[in-house]
Amino acid sequence: MRIAELSERSSVPGATIKYYTREGMLPPGERVGYNQTDYDERHLARIRLIRALLEVGKLKITEIRDVVAAIDDHELPIRSVLAVAQHAASGTTTEPSRAATSTVRSFADRHDWLVSEENPGLLAVAATLDRFAKLDRSDLEQMLDAFAPSIEAIASYDIDRVAEVLEDRDLAAETVVIGTALGDTLLTGMRRMAQESIARTRYTPPEQ
Amino acid sequence: MRIAELSERSSVPGATIKYYTREGMLPPGERVGYNQTDYDERHLARIRLIRALLEVGKLKITEIRDVVAAIDDHELPIRSVLAVAQHAASGTTTEPSRAATSTVRSFADRHDWLVSEENPGLLAVAATLDRFAKLDRSDLEQMLDAFAPSIEAIASYDIDRVAEVLEDRDLAAETVVIGTALGDTLLTGMRRMAQESIARTRYTPPEQ
Repeated sequence: MRIAELSERSSVPGATIKYYTREGMLPPGERVGYNQTDYDERHLARIRLIRALLEVGKLKITEIRDVVAAIDDHELPIRSVLAVAQHAASGTTTEPSRAATSTVRSFADRHDWLVSEENPGLLAVAATLDRFAKLDRSDLEQMLDAFAPSIEAIASYDIDRVAEVLEDRDLAAETVVIGTALGDTLLTGMRRMAQESIARTRYTPPEQ
Repeated sequence: MRIAELSERSSVPGATIKYYTREGMLPPGERVGYNQTDYDERHLARIRLIRALLEVGKLKITEIRDVVAAIDDHELPIRSVLAVAQHAASGTTTEPSRAATSTVRSFADRHDWLVSEENPGLLAVAATLDRFAKLDRSDLEQMLDAFAPSIEAIASYDIDRVAEVLEDRDLAAETVVIGTALGDTLLTGMRRMAQESIARTRYTPPEQ
């Protein structure tokens, strides 16, 4: 298809498509004559992935470039794709204190979670504990232990879904990226649904 | 304390403190003479709350203004504070399709979740399903049912923690806001930790 059709089917302007190509996020189309380029379904699929990461995953363009490069690096092992996707989807985190970091480390040890120093989740959790402490709400640290079994079940499901398709490396890589970036939105969205439902029964009048 | 001390203890410039006051997010200090204003620990606590929502919760200033107004409206029932906090923490979502919305509604019914039309989580989940479909990954819809029991456990814990302090309305309101905005970061962070740990055992060589 020509760029006009690609633009129409993806609802993305031609200039943006060219920008994605220049940035290496989209492979160039095939030149089929003077000033004409041909694109196929894979280009369309890639643009849709970029838009999903941007609009639902709320990733920045530079973060999308990183995860797309990880998908396209066919030698990169899936565990490394996961690390890149996690890093991209985490955005910037304020540096946590040593005390909070060691609290999260002890928590991980207590639950037999083997987590590296650079795991962006560990840093985000530790930074959150620092804020709880500053807000005089250190009681909220209990959330860690309370949530652990549920989070473990969720993460097991995530990893199993990818393990099922591990022989198709590129599909596995894409599943990791989508699951990480869009899975966050799914998870927090579901939490809000369940909270509303449970609040209806627990917060009864006179307190409402 | 004077504004200089408030600024130092909160690590927020005086001009920003004045801006928060003008925007109604921070109550004015007490005038104690010509060109002098006195602030107390509650001002410091409020600034720390604002900064936590901004830096860890990634809320926009207008969203923070909404949740702070909800905390300060002492007549507002806790269920409504929860709705405001959920809305603020969800950011903007693309309008989901009818088909995706009805898929999420059926899912909620199947699990006896009583969720209103306007629940921002419902909209976010439906919009995510639309993206899965566009990416030809409708198989990922199974995540909903797979995650449901874990999410229910997490949300129950959230709601119970607030129910415990319901007689102190303002503490309950603040707990709702912190739990919603910072809880998201905690949850997604913990998921990344658990994923890394589980991936270590499941993605074994030669696939790594």
